[in-house]
Amino acid sequence: MAMYVVIFRARIRAFDAEYSHTATRMRELAFAQFGCLDFHAVVEGDNEVVLSYWPDEAAIRAWRAHPEHVLAQQAGRDRWYVSYTVQIAPITREYHGGLKGPVQSDRQQFGIVPAAE
Amino acid sequence: MAMYVVIFRARIRAFDAEYSHTATRMRELAFAQFGCLDFHAVVEGDNEVVLSYWPDEAAIRAWRAHPEHVLAQQAGRDRWYVSYTVQIAPITREYHGGLKGPVQSDRQQFGIVPAAE
Repeated sequence: MAMYVVIFRARIRAFDAEYSHTATRMRELAFAQFGCLDFHAVVEGDNEVVLSYWPDEAAIRAWRAHPEHVLAQQAGRDRWYVSYTVQIAPITREYHGGLKGPVQSDRQQFGIVPAAE
Repeated sequence: MAMYVVIFRARIRAFDAEYSHTATRMRELAFAQFGCLDFHAVVEGDNEVVLSYWPDEAAIRAWRAHPEHVLAQQAGRDRWYVSYTVQIAPITREYHGGLKGPVQSDRQQFGIVPAAE
């Protein structure tokens, strides 16, 4: 299955009480209404990386244009972030190691396998 | 210019003294010998995300096969990580907001612009 990733990289200005509520809500919306496949956020110091995964670009566009998300983006620009970069990319290859990996031979488990199957 | 991202997502088992040394060395190698364009690592709790950016897939393959990197991958599997996923994707769109954004009109600064120019 094809899969797109949206990479959100941000320098944090300050997270207020509303941030946590909004982040939770946006994640819920992404899964419930826009077919989001996976959502992974990591914060270290003032660096945030959020990876979200989608079935196609139309889902990403619809997600980006949702009125609640537009407001969240505005709050991000106004209050939460100094700066950010968004990158969109179709995943062409994927491989796993360790416990998360599919049950396969060692070579496959630790080798490159096509993402689209 | 075309650009590929390698997304490394891992669940950390334990980072020992060698990890920090190796991580620094791998980053140096990536830039000095393999044309790495950007390298961004974020750790929160036992989650690590490392984003690295490359001009083409050949650079990624060469990087992956370098003897020192092969040893580092083995140490990662044996000691540092419970599990990990690696995803490779060509970036097709990119946009910026805030201070890092290119000097452009507001619409462009906060709108989607093609990554390849």
